[in-house]
Amino acid sequence: MRFFSDNAAAVSPAVLDAMVAANHVDTAYDGDALSQKLDGVFSDLFGTDCAALWVSTGTAANCLALATMVPPHGGVFCHSEAHINSDEAGAPEFFTHGAKLMPLDGEGAKLTPDTIIAARKAIRADVHRVQPHVLSITNATEYGLVYTPDEVAALSVVCREHGLGLHMDGARFANAIATLGGHPGDVTWRAGVDVLSFGFVKNGGLSAEALIFFRTDLAEIARIRRKRAGHLNSKGRYQAAQILALLEADRWLDNARAANAGAATIAAAAGDRLLYPVQANELFLRLTADEAATLRSNGFDFYDWGEGEVRLVTSWDQPVAEIEALAAAIRALGAP
Amino acid sequence: MRFFSDNAAAVSPAVLDAMVAANHVDTAYDGDALSQKLDGVFSDLFGTDCAALWVSTGTAANCLALATMVPPHGGVFCHSEAHINSDEAGAPEFFTHGAKLMPLDGEGAKLTPDTIIAARKAIRADVHRVQPHVLSITNATEYGLVYTPDEVAALSVVCREHGLGLHMDGARFANAIATLGGHPGDVTWRAGVDVLSFGFVKNGGLSAEALIFFRTDLAEIARIRRKRAGHLNSKGRYQAAQILALLEADRWLDNARAANAGAATIAAAAGDRLLYPVQANELFLRLTADEAATLRSNGFDFYDWGEGEVRLVTSWDQPVAEIEALAAAIRALGAP
Amino acid sequence: MRFFSDNAAAVSPAVLDAMVAANHVDTAYDGDALSQKLDGVFSDLFGTDCAALWVSTGTAANCLALATMVPPHGGVFCHSEAHINSDEAGAPEFFTHGAKLMPLDGEGAKLTPDTIIAARKAIRADVHRVQPHVLSITNATEYGLVYTPDEVAALSVVCREHGLGLHMDGARFANAIATLGGHPGDVTWRAGVDVLSFGFVKNGGLSAEALIFFRTDLAEIARIRRKRAGHLNSKGRYQAAQILALLEADRWLDNARAANAGAATIAAAAGDRLLYPVQANELFLRLTADEAATLRSNGFDFYDWGEGEVRLVTSWDQPVAEIEALAAAIRALGAP
Amino acid sequence: MRFFSDNAAAVSPAVLDAMVAANHVDTAYDGDALSQKLDGVFSDLFGTDCAALWVSTGTAANCLALATMVPPHGGVFCHSEAHINSDEAGAPEFFTHGAKLMPLDGEGAKLTPDTIIAARKAIRADVHRVQPHVLSITNATEYGLVYTPDEVAALSVVCREHGLGLHMDGARFANAIATLGGHPGDVTWRAGVDVLSFGFVKNGGLSAEALIFFRTDLAEIARIRRKRAGHLNSKGRYQAAQILALLEADRWLDNARAANAGAATIAAAAGDRLLYPVQANELFLRLTADEAATLRSNGFDFYDWGEGEVRLVTSWDQPVAEIEALAAAIRALGAP
Repeated sequence: MRFFSDNAAAVSPAVLDAMVAANHVDTAYDGDALSQKLDGVFSDLFGTDCAALWVSTGTAANCLALATMVPPHGGVFCHSEAHINSDEAGAPEFFTHGAKLMPLDGEGAKLTPDTIIAARKAIRADVHRVQPHVLSITNATEYGLVYTPDEVAALSVVCREHGLGLHMDGARFANAIATLGGHPGDVTWRAGVDVLSFGFVKNGGLSAEALIFFRTDLAEIARIRRKRAGHLNSKGRYQAAQILALLEADRWLDNARAANAGAATIAAAAGDRLLYPVQANELFLRLTADEAATLRSNGFDFYDWGEGEVRLVTSWDQPVAEIEALAAAIRALGAP
Repeated sequence: MRFFSDNAAAVSPAVLDAMVAANHVDTAYDGDALSQKLDGVFSDLFGTDCAALWVSTGTAANCLALATMVPPHGGVFCHSEAHINSDEAGAPEFFTHGAKLMPLDGEGAKLTPDTIIAARKAIRADVHRVQPHVLSITNATEYGLVYTPDEVAALSVVCREHGLGLHMDGARFANAIATLGGHPGDVTWRAGVDVLSFGFVKNGGLSAEALIFFRTDLAEIARIRRKRAGHLNSKGRYQAAQILALLEADRWLDNARAANAGAATIAAAAGDRLLYPVQANELFLRLTADEAATLRSNGFDFYDWGEGEVRLVTSWDQPVAEIEALAAAIRALGAP
Repeated sequence: MRFFSDNAAAVSPAVLDAMVAANHVDTAYDGDALSQKLDGVFSDLFGTDCAALWVSTGTAANCLALATMVPPHGGVFCHSEAHINSDEAGAPEFFTHGAKLMPLDGEGAKLTPDTIIAARKAIRADVHRVQPHVLSITNATEYGLVYTPDEVAALSVVCREHGLGLHMDGARFANAIATLGGHPGDVTWRAGVDVLSFGFVKNGGLSAEALIFFRTDLAEIARIRRKRAGHLNSKGRYQAAQILALLEADRWLDNARAANAGAATIAAAAGDRLLYPVQANELFLRLTADEAATLRSNGFDFYDWGEGEVRLVTSWDQPVAEIEALAAAIRALGAP
Repeated sequence: MRFFSDNAAAVSPAVLDAMVAANHVDTAYDGDALSQKLDGVFSDLFGTDCAALWVSTGTAANCLALATMVPPHGGVFCHSEAHINSDEAGAPEFFTHGAKLMPLDGEGAKLTPDTIIAARKAIRADVHRVQPHVLSITNATEYGLVYTPDEVAALSVVCREHGLGLHMDGARFANAIATLGGHPGDVTWRAGVDVLSFGFVKNGGLSAEALIFFRTDLAEIARIRRKRAGHLNSKGRYQAAQILALLEADRWLDNARAANAGAATIAAAAGDRLLYPVQANELFLRLTADEAATLRSNGFDFYDWGEGEVRLVTSWDQPVAEIEALAAAIRALGAP
């Protein structure tokens, strides 16, 4: 029973069906009928004009976004444990041609306005220091916490004051919206987000993420850079089909709700073992090595996350029986 | 009836079936069972140890290959009409961090040893001149010509003498092999090719190309650079599945033979209109604007290719009726 | 007697005197009194507001200029024998993060509006093709020809129509002005030049070139990029001192006139051997191998420039006796 | 009286004399007689074969060094307050094409083996994480501390174990050697340093630093990259002349000793105000805002260095009277 990562999950049958349905001759690259729908569909979803590009990975989405927002000589504020800083193999530096990630700290991989203000103030404004141009936040964060619309809006006020663009890495954006419950525009453009990496692959997709530009002027550059990065698939319709299938009938939300519900069930069992509140589909637990071994011997797979800590991730398609079995197994460990 | 591009063709049902069959939980990235098979399967196919990576586009395959073979301060010999020089939006410069493409001329986008020798000789060996490190050739070429094993071997002799790596862009490698008829090792590693971009997407695939390292020492860097370029799909098994499906039962060869046969049928009708011999699935024809308009009014779509010239591309799944209709329509134009 | 290159010449005593005179404590980098004068002095010289940065080489000047005018995904039109394309070791690609140089042809390394128009027209405007953003011309050209104000203005009209910035590599700008005889603004900003690399090192300087932004909005980026390229000398006053010394009392013009006069004397002797009109301080001559050997045996050093051709460069400080000796030696060779 | 920076100091008259003496025709770039001496002179100085390149700034020296030691996808361990991380405007990222600086902590900008070991261990060895390839240390450090040969050797043991190259930023290398008193080979190649940025500009030079490769195989790449970065001055003899003049008669050591002696005098006066031991020519003092104002009103200029702290730097040519006046003024402030 795999609680390693939502990346390991299967693909939604609706996605595969949509890809099969797209299997006919059409214009290459993103000139096909499905790809051409994306701008409109996302504009409807978000309630504002936006430009939407499919790309095949979250890393590509994040880095293409950053490449439109920061010059090679600029910097990017982000959390020190942000995916862009820790797990993307230097892709942000590659796509931006050497912009500097400026890691900041914050509980649960969340950043606050005060942190940004202090960091900005500490950088002397001269040619010897790299000047920040963007703030990138992750929602839900790498520790499964969710930024509320108010929190994002407060950050964006700081961004505007200091000339910073605001990027949201939404690899688990669906999980955040499932938790927040409101309109997806509230925590994005209405709160000042310029560009959103809207993740689908962890949530039932196969190989398509959406890169959403609320600042549509940036999208044109992104389209060029996508090709230049080898990310303009020649049969783009199979990319668009995935995204459209997940947007249809709110499948993306249903999937995220299922994953979140699984996490909530386990969280209830974990109680004081939880290192962070569980607001999405990731759980970080205190477990001794013996306890972890016990769970593993019962068939549960998951990552260690530092000394005496583990990470568990639930997926959109995780069988309820697996969830309940894990909850029971954690309860059986007794108090931490 | 589309003769624009083999990029517009549908995906082989076997590929989609294989993707559906892969739709279960597995290890993320390229740790899954299917991805792990690739090295072995390609080593068997080519009859030598090789390392194989899936990537989602031909541009990514070519540029990752080049990035392992040329330093940022080096150069790449290629034909002036090579895809890497003309149609990849500067992706080679991006992936290599600014290496210089050094375009050379040659009939039908083919290069000869003499051209390489002359070009190399013209570059003074000092720090003021960019020094070439790689030769990249395309097989079949951008004009549908096929390099024979002897021709490639002759180029590789020059490469060895001048310290150049040898890359083959095989976006239509299958079509070349279908024409050559021999073992795929003959025109690649046995002829001195170091790295091959082995195309599948134009030949029935969906989003998976194979990057084949006959110099396996280069593959490790390519694996890092693939991630750094955002090309390490998190659900890599759906990438591997495509390639495996096309390799199975020689589907890749059958598909290429079908496309080539279509081109041959049209070529027979085109006669003196042909600008180049037809050795793969592309045809370049002399057509007046009126003649082109006549064909288009009969429902045939294709690209103009300069003044009085057009390009036609046949696909693996092109209905025979379409092929015959086009051949008949060209015959009906009369002598050029 | 060296006719290799004006790079080999000595430094003007006035330059060394000015450096000695600057030898006292002052603010570091470009905060010193001399560096702070440059914007004003060049604005006076050119008769318009401009921003001026010292840099230590012509390569740095050209490449910093280009880096402000073309994005990494863009292209630069230039002559195929332009210094930036042939002799700067890929520095333009480095500073621009991979922009593509697009070499064009033209007699004597000069470009014409028709060439630019045809080249621009040949590039399909889509994401697969690198789009040009700048035209870079050299004045005097690499073959010693001079663009007139009218010729530059005609090119700039094309640039404006096609959204191209206009850069002038003026490694031998002084020699061009010495020949043209007019106001230095006429062939630069009044003719539509956006950025000028104004060379001093070949003309009596030691290690300081001036990068002149007539589009002053670009200068701010250039100041950042200069530091990022390691070109912000910590003791910048010695850089500014060189330039100011050469501008003072029109030394830059006197030096260039002297070099040009030397070339004119030799040109008169060379007659039909000249491959190009001599408009600055470079001469390209038809010489058989035997004739070249004869000259060398008489103590004249110079470069071969392809089969049966040589290049001669005169310098600001070349003794008249050397010039006359060479002229006589060429005459003595007889008719070509 | 300026205690801002040794960058503001004048140039040694011996350096200017040597430049004047070099003022005659010679081969361009680094083909002149003086430049050609550097390898030999530094090999003698260090007691081992080494390759030496002049460059015009410390930033260029550091970044060219790093560019030969780390691939674009690699990382560089350094102190968080290292000059390369804090004050070079992203130049390391530029020259290395996006390698990631991995800042570490340590008292007084010094790093210890334990810190390196812990940092290396925390980086999972897979393609998602940037892997470190180099350790860069500064000697003397940005806080004026000196690494001993034993300390460097201990770091180099860790480097060898983990496949890291070892770079030393010696912007104030002379000051370190003046303090250590031993052979310059002891704290460099004998202690495992691969490449040294040997600073001259802060120590009486004008615009020439030396980049020393104890791993001579790396120098060839550096020579290419120097040109590609626009750092190959066309009149290189004036660069080499500066370095040779400072090496002659141990001027570099005398100058550093003078600067260090000045710092020692002030340190004796500062007593408990010192934030770090004074081992070179930099002092960091606790001063209230009022105390700082008092000093400034007495004519002493220096930088604030965070709340209640200031930095003072002494120079090779600082008049003894200025030093003594500052010492007296600090004593007059009384106990902190």
